[in-house]
Amino acid sequence: MRSIQQVASELGLGPRDLFTYGDQMAKLRLPAWGDEPGSARLVLVTAMSPSPAGEGKTTVAIGLTDALRRMGARAVVALREPSMGPVFGKKGGGTGGGRAQLWPAERINLHFTGDLHAVTSAHNLLAAALDNHLHFGNALDLDVRRLTFRRVMDQNDRALRQIVVGLGGRHQGIPREDRFDITAASEVMAVLALSRDYADLKKRLGRIIVGLDRSGRPVTASSLEVEGAMAALLSDALMPNLAQTIEGTPALVHCGPFANIAHGTSSVVATRLALQQAEVVVQEAGFGAELGAEKFLDIFCRELGRFPNLAVVVATRRALTLHGLDNLKAHLELLERFGLPTLVALNEMEGDPPDELDLPHVPVRVYQEGGEGALALARQVLESGPPAAVRPAYELNASLVDKISSLATGVYGADGVEYTPRARTQLEECASFGYGGAYVCVAKTQSSLSDDPRRPGRPRGFKLGVRSVYLLGGAGFVVPLCGEIMTMPGLGKHPNYEEIDLSPDGVVTGI
Amino acid sequence: MRSIQQVASELGLGPRDLFTYGDQMAKLRLPAWGDEPGSARLVLVTAMSPSPAGEGKTTVAIGLTDALRRMGARAVVALREPSMGPVFGKKGGGTGGGRAQLWPAERINLHFTGDLHAVTSAHNLLAAALDNHLHFGNALDLDVRRLTFRRVMDQNDRALRQIVVGLGGRHQGIPREDRFDITAASEVMAVLALSRDYADLKKRLGRIIVGLDRSGRPVTASSLEVEGAMAALLSDALMPNLAQTIEGTPALVHCGPFANIAHGTSSVVATRLALQQAEVVVQEAGFGAELGAEKFLDIFCRELGRFPNLAVVVATRRALTLHGLDNLKAHLELLERFGLPTLVALNEMEGDPPDELDLPHVPVRVYQEGGEGALALARQVLESGPPAAVRPAYELNASLVDKISSLATGVYGADGVEYTPRARTQLEECASFGYGGAYVCVAKTQSSLSDDPRRPGRPRGFKLGVRSVYLLGGAGFVVPLCGEIMTMPGLGKHPNYEEIDLSPDGVVTGI
Amino acid sequence: MRSIQQVASELGLGPRDLFTYGDQMAKLRLPAWGDEPGSARLVLVTAMSPSPAGEGKTTVAIGLTDALRRMGARAVVALREPSMGPVFGKKGGGTGGGRAQLWPAERINLHFTGDLHAVTSAHNLLAAALDNHLHFGNALDLDVRRLTFRRVMDQNDRALRQIVVGLGGRHQGIPREDRFDITAASEVMAVLALSRDYADLKKRLGRIIVGLDRSGRPVTASSLEVEGAMAALLSDALMPNLAQTIEGTPALVHCGPFANIAHGTSSVVATRLALQQAEVVVQEAGFGAELGAEKFLDIFCRELGRFPNLAVVVATRRALTLHGLDNLKAHLELLERFGLPTLVALNEMEGDPPDELDLPHVPVRVYQEGGEGALALARQVLESGPPAAVRPAYELNASLVDKISSLATGVYGADGVEYTPRARTQLEECASFGYGGAYVCVAKTQSSLSDDPRRPGRPRGFKLGVRSVYLLGGAGFVVPLCGEIMTMPGLGKHPNYEEIDLSPDGVVTGI
Amino acid sequence: MRSIQQVASELGLGPRDLFTYGDQMAKLRLPAWGDEPGSARLVLVTAMSPSPAGEGKTTVAIGLTDALRRMGARAVVALREPSMGPVFGKKGGGTGGGRAQLWPAERINLHFTGDLHAVTSAHNLLAAALDNHLHFGNALDLDVRRLTFRRVMDQNDRALRQIVVGLGGRHQGIPREDRFDITAASEVMAVLALSRDYADLKKRLGRIIVGLDRSGRPVTASSLEVEGAMAALLSDALMPNLAQTIEGTPALVHCGPFANIAHGTSSVVATRLALQQAEVVVQEAGFGAELGAEKFLDIFCRELGRFPNLAVVVATRRALTLHGLDNLKAHLELLERFGLPTLVALNEMEGDPPDELDLPHVPVRVYQEGGEGALALARQVLESGPPAAVRPAYELNASLVDKISSLATGVYGADGVEYTPRARTQLEECASFGYGGAYVCVAKTQSSLSDDPRRPGRPRGFKLGVRSVYLLGGAGFVVPLCGEIMTMPGLGKHPNYEEIDLSPDGVVTGI
Repeated sequence: MRSIQQVASELGLGPRDLFTYGDQMAKLRLPAWGDEPGSARLVLVTAMSPSPAGEGKTTVAIGLTDALRRMGARAVVALREPSMGPVFGKKGGGTGGGRAQLWPAERINLHFTGDLHAVTSAHNLLAAALDNHLHFGNALDLDVRRLTFRRVMDQNDRALRQIVVGLGGRHQGIPREDRFDITAASEVMAVLALSRDYADLKKRLGRIIVGLDRSGRPVTASSLEVEGAMAALLSDALMPNLAQTIEGTPALVHCGPFANIAHGTSSVVATRLALQQAEVVVQEAGFGAELGAEKFLDIFCRELGRFPNLAVVVATRRALTLHGLDNLKAHLELLERFGLPTLVALNEMEGDPPDELDLPHVPVRVYQEGGEGALALARQVLESGPPAAVRPAYELNASLVDKISSLATGVYGADGVEYTPRARTQLEECASFGYGGAYVCVAKTQSSLSDDPRRPGRPRGFKLGVRSVYLLGGAGFVVPLCGEIMTMPGLGKHPNYEEIDLSPDGVVTGI
Repeated sequence: MRSIQQVASELGLGPRDLFTYGDQMAKLRLPAWGDEPGSARLVLVTAMSPSPAGEGKTTVAIGLTDALRRMGARAVVALREPSMGPVFGKKGGGTGGGRAQLWPAERINLHFTGDLHAVTSAHNLLAAALDNHLHFGNALDLDVRRLTFRRVMDQNDRALRQIVVGLGGRHQGIPREDRFDITAASEVMAVLALSRDYADLKKRLGRIIVGLDRSGRPVTASSLEVEGAMAALLSDALMPNLAQTIEGTPALVHCGPFANIAHGTSSVVATRLALQQAEVVVQEAGFGAELGAEKFLDIFCRELGRFPNLAVVVATRRALTLHGLDNLKAHLELLERFGLPTLVALNEMEGDPPDELDLPHVPVRVYQEGGEGALALARQVLESGPPAAVRPAYELNASLVDKISSLATGVYGADGVEYTPRARTQLEECASFGYGGAYVCVAKTQSSLSDDPRRPGRPRGFKLGVRSVYLLGGAGFVVPLCGEIMTMPGLGKHPNYEEIDLSPDGVVTGI
Repeated sequence: MRSIQQVASELGLGPRDLFTYGDQMAKLRLPAWGDEPGSARLVLVTAMSPSPAGEGKTTVAIGLTDALRRMGARAVVALREPSMGPVFGKKGGGTGGGRAQLWPAERINLHFTGDLHAVTSAHNLLAAALDNHLHFGNALDLDVRRLTFRRVMDQNDRALRQIVVGLGGRHQGIPREDRFDITAASEVMAVLALSRDYADLKKRLGRIIVGLDRSGRPVTASSLEVEGAMAALLSDALMPNLAQTIEGTPALVHCGPFANIAHGTSSVVATRLALQQAEVVVQEAGFGAELGAEKFLDIFCRELGRFPNLAVVVATRRALTLHGLDNLKAHLELLERFGLPTLVALNEMEGDPPDELDLPHVPVRVYQEGGEGALALARQVLESGPPAAVRPAYELNASLVDKISSLATGVYGADGVEYTPRARTQLEECASFGYGGAYVCVAKTQSSLSDDPRRPGRPRGFKLGVRSVYLLGGAGFVVPLCGEIMTMPGLGKHPNYEEIDLSPDGVVTGI
Repeated sequence: MRSIQQVASELGLGPRDLFTYGDQMAKLRLPAWGDEPGSARLVLVTAMSPSPAGEGKTTVAIGLTDALRRMGARAVVALREPSMGPVFGKKGGGTGGGRAQLWPAERINLHFTGDLHAVTSAHNLLAAALDNHLHFGNALDLDVRRLTFRRVMDQNDRALRQIVVGLGGRHQGIPREDRFDITAASEVMAVLALSRDYADLKKRLGRIIVGLDRSGRPVTASSLEVEGAMAALLSDALMPNLAQTIEGTPALVHCGPFANIAHGTSSVVATRLALQQAEVVVQEAGFGAELGAEKFLDIFCRELGRFPNLAVVVATRRALTLHGLDNLKAHLELLERFGLPTLVALNEMEGDPPDELDLPHVPVRVYQEGGEGALALARQVLESGPPAAVRPAYELNASLVDKISSLATGVYGADGVEYTPRARTQLEECASFGYGGAYVCVAKTQSSLSDDPRRPGRPRGFKLGVRSVYLLGGAGFVVPLCGEIMTMPGLGKHPNYEEIDLSPDGVVTGI
């Protein structure tokens, strides 16, 4: 493999721009940004509704970028960092597969450059500060039953989903109910991914809401005087990570918010840097287009300051069998409604039947062939037009109820929205707290266009059910919670960790 | 500052021996060890009983090494890695002070090269595997009330000292009591610090005891098939970290077990490497000599395979005021009983009265003058003799009761030992489980030679009270718990985090 | 007031039939029953859907019985015993009001003859036996997360609604989640109210299900060998209590199952005794007819062995204002569907507007006038025909799903039933455990004919939502839980206990 | 058996003085007390240190009273009410044995007249009021970690020893740690036993301390406005219960505070009444004389207003074998130090070796022979002198530290007292809260004169260790806690409840 310095030089970056982690990984120092995002071609990789195994968006994004580079374009792929929970659990790593992979995969799948650890530390520092404040007299008059900021750990650990802390008497904190989420579900992760520079990072951290006081008003991290220390813990983590594909293509792998509960794509700073230094930027957004692409366009791109040129929609035989062609069509239509041109990439796997998809599409064979397997797709990507004139699903100055309605009917295909009384009250609280103009970042199952995971295909005749609403003041999100969304996964009966090992000469195997 | 490559070259190490973290930090690849530890001069830095603010052992060790290097010796200092809990809490960082400091101090005090994060992850993976095993039917028949392996976090967070986990019903784990310790108190940290290579690391991890089954037999990590994955998480962490002092002297900063509850000094691999590549190795061991030096000699050196040449005993006016000269004498006497030559270093601070210490000693002014302030001390160190023929405080084949008695009477100055009935039972269990030949690693207050923190000076006429005994199978320790020892610190009313900040250009301040 | 011996003699009972509690209260020894229930006239007092303050069913039942006695009939009223929770909470006592009251009211509202204490003790003995079984090795392999038998207390105490027990280590039980319900919600209360003699009581207690084992099979009290001791604790409690109205009419006040979560009427043994010893028995059943009357007819009367002669349906101006006339009509229609003749009693209160109810009815003024105020009603009651040929809402040999459907559509006016997946699974389990032939005792809000408390009147176009299903093996009930039903009330901001007092000469005031 | 009316008439009480519970039990209405306690002879029955099975103090007290009556004296025995926990647990009932028993034993051992239920209800009403206060804003600023008032249940239920309550969110109370004690350990029980009339009862209830506020000041039940309702719940319970021995002797069986944690004898009102209506009153006090007799003399008699005439000290072969003759001598000496004449009663059991006790004593055979077996003892009792001029172990106006010292050295035979720092602080708090003049009611093991249950006989050379101190404001006790004292017993592996049963004709067996 090439050294990370060589990879960086392909992006016009010199040794002073790098903070290296060995020979194969580096963090990139943040430049002084202007107001304008870069002008490179931006390609969103999204997908139809996924099957449980996933449709290979990451693999296709890597293979497509390799293909673009083979065709002479200065291309870079922008991906999310894997979370260790799934690595040791069921799903495994997040570095692509076959001949379309990131390098060094084991390191990226484990500690990488420590970003998830930094998010965990910063998040839990705020939690510790919160309990410390309660312990020393609770001057802010927080209601211990209405604290919404939890703790996080980068593990799959179901025993921490519902806990009681602060037991043991008067020197041990205040008793209260708490929970641990997985680090990727931390608001700090979303904040890191959206912040454009150090000052923005600190400001957003200070706006994180930890809970309500006894008069029902929100209390923020800045009231606890801890956002500076949190930002200090995240100062390296804000720098994008540079690695490469196994074909040597530059890869920015940075931040990892989930797409079902958060906004689901890599960082604003990574994309900004890539748009300035490359000709084509290929960026993945999680799960199906109704979640990942929607949040990419409505949230990420508005924060970034520009929209993509086109979307590649990944489909597989497996997902088509589960969801039907109508599901793919629904995703294409919703992207058209945004005004974004689309290309369907049929990600071919061993043993697939011959291609008979009744829809314009490009087959790709990146797992088997690397960049060679996506040359046709790359060609069409290079023929795409200028950045699209995207029409967001909702305007920020609409009411929260209207924004949610727009997503439900315009994106998911619902007939309307049903709120529990609690959700309705919470929505009114969000507005009264001054968050009426926030993004709406829906937490919803990825297994269906609807909020019911047992309804594959293209569900019709349903109402989106909103059970509760919470507020992420740092990210700037109002989050309607639709159905039961797991924020701390569990391990399976025979988790991956049973297979992972370290050889006597220090080589990690089994990931 | 010099680049880390230049620093490494002073130790005869080339680029291939390093895994760099930016320009100023590196991990050193483990060489193939022979059976013999290196032959360099080994200087132990220990102290009299400390006052609450600490006596500056780290600062003296750094300054002394700087002085040795000024005098032309190829010297290296071996120190422990700071824990982030105290950094954000009361005590602050652990990188020396004034002109005797490590570089880059902020980075070392925060994430450094991620070792503590790796220990946290490996530890909590075992905890998650344990709860996962309970959830899936508990085939090993573990008694949920007798699980001794807890969780860890690198925070000061008193609300996690006593918790209940596994609530929420049949899909959420099994209800049980649990706690979080600070990462420095993790058995995984002790294991990492003692392991001589990857195979040893994995073997030790597999021997960690998670609790007892319902028939009262210990159950280990290897029964849960998780030691390979834990070792994989620790593969980088086992490599010693290289940094430098602000005078440019090489510094190995690796692992951080506390000296009150664990064995309290930096890693075996760091010292081995240093003994092979340098002429003088200056190594710090935590708290007073009855804890740090005792464990250094009885545990660390037996694992290392050799003993130091002499001990520097740090004293301050502050500690002499609090504890009296008798306390210092007690520490010198106990070191003499081990057969180790000693030098008293009086660490002078601004405003100290003129030197009138009625005892042979060498004043040092390293905070104010760096290496220049320890030249006299360095001269005496270089005049010291060959490695001492140390007589350990106990032989490993003595009974556990006899070993504890030897420490109580021979090291702490007690009249004997008093066990609670529970402690006596546990001690018998340790022997019956096959750990009769283990090290005895006493958990005791650092504030007194006795087990009562309110007895400064040189207490006499007391019995060491052993409240309970626990077994660290991976570290190979039987731990008699004497008094109340905090394994998860709390934050103060106005913790350091209120002062720590990140500037808009990314500079961390306030640590 | 007359002595209790005089009251008893009116029912043909002598001193040997009584176990007295002072001069005014007695328990009646159980006679040897024949197979035939008595032949007296049985009058059910039920109501339209209630307003929050209640419609005075108890008061009307008392006043009606007083009126019947004034007219020369040997009449007795059968009522439930008050629970102390509401006495100290918001609702107050349950002994009627004004001139239609029970005597001695304070005693009946407090400890009375100790029946609720006996139920509490017997219930909690089973709970203690259950935890004791877990502690001593759990030979029955119970799943600690699937225990359904909770603890009870005769208090309004919301802090006990969700608790964790068994903390403190290996000598203190097994950690698990638990809750306290109010005693009136205890299955033991339902068992006591339905048992026909001591043998039946013990058999039913033994069939109470405490939870599931790890293979998913139910475990009963008899497996814990505790039903004999529970029955011993209840031996006095099974004897009906005799008191009197303030007009001197005999009153049997015995057992107190709630009508929203249990079957909601006084005991089988009290009614049997009354039917043998009196000419007219007036019995109250809780809440509206869709709950109280339905369960009275479908459960209580089938256990009793006969049906009532007619039903008096109590209405008030307050309830008519809240629910409308249509609600009253719905209750009358559902009683007609059972085949039971009805009389509407309009319970007049001070300040009510003049009577303009567009429906045949009889005004009663029992609060103001005692029995005098119900003479017209009593006259119509005495003109009623023989016991009705009631058609139950469901046959016991129908499937559980069909029984629930019959109640939903035939009694509540729903369009159908919607089950959560969990409820459907639980229903199948009930059948597989052999309880397919059990009574269906719906737990539903009393505030609406539907399962949504916010829908007063006569709701249409709704489906009954069944969230979960539980099994009361001792009572013989399958309970579909519809909506959130409180089984442990809370106290209000200014509870009744602030007003209750004891004078220096021992007089209780304020109840 | 005689009717309870006949038994009462022997004490000069008529039907109007009774509130009957069937034919065999009654409560006695409280007369208007004068200032002077009655003048009857008062005999204290105490014992040497007990063996685990108990030495039969209750049985001897019953037999002695029967013998006194046989000799023509108007005698009454005053005993404590049994707790149901031990009845269903290991120890069994508390109504004597063999031919020296109370009647009706089963009823007295189970619900009796409901006093323990009333104590449970009143106690838990205060607990519910406390949590209700926290829920509604905590206007009194209570510190949730320093609440000392727990909940009670009349069960042996170890799973309730350490619990967490108030879980479930903002409508479910405030999370906090709590515990259940057995009802006999309730402060309300001690209050009931000490109160002289209704007004005193209510005043004492109002002084019960529920915990400390955040400024460290005690908060009482009266602040919660609940003492009136508590007193109302206890209005019947304050009346002494009358039953009889199987020889027909009147027995007052009232209140049941334990002697290890409370003051351990029956009620002040029962003894007052007995002293007025009888010629000889025989009263039992729990455990050995260092606990039961000490508290009887120092606490009970000072509340009563007079002292006993003599003490009967029960010994058995079993206890003499376990503790030695020296133990018996120690108990006699401590009673002499109080100034109280003593008689040793050797309670003979089947299979005891021939009597060779080297000490003046009277053999009694009451289990085998009833009153006949205690005639010799009765004779000596009747020869005893006037009420003793008892010198209490401490004066009430001494300091708390001095009072505890007096008990330790003067009663237990200790060399002195050792306090934990926490205990010392708490003792100072008690004084600062105005309780310096309170009784000292030591909580100590009954198995030894010392505080170490493993030291039988007559321990010397020990210091009394005080671990913590708590304050019972209603009882007027400062309680030094010495060692681990169980306030909630557990059930055994095969508890009594497995043997208890109810026959089909309603007869309780197996108690």
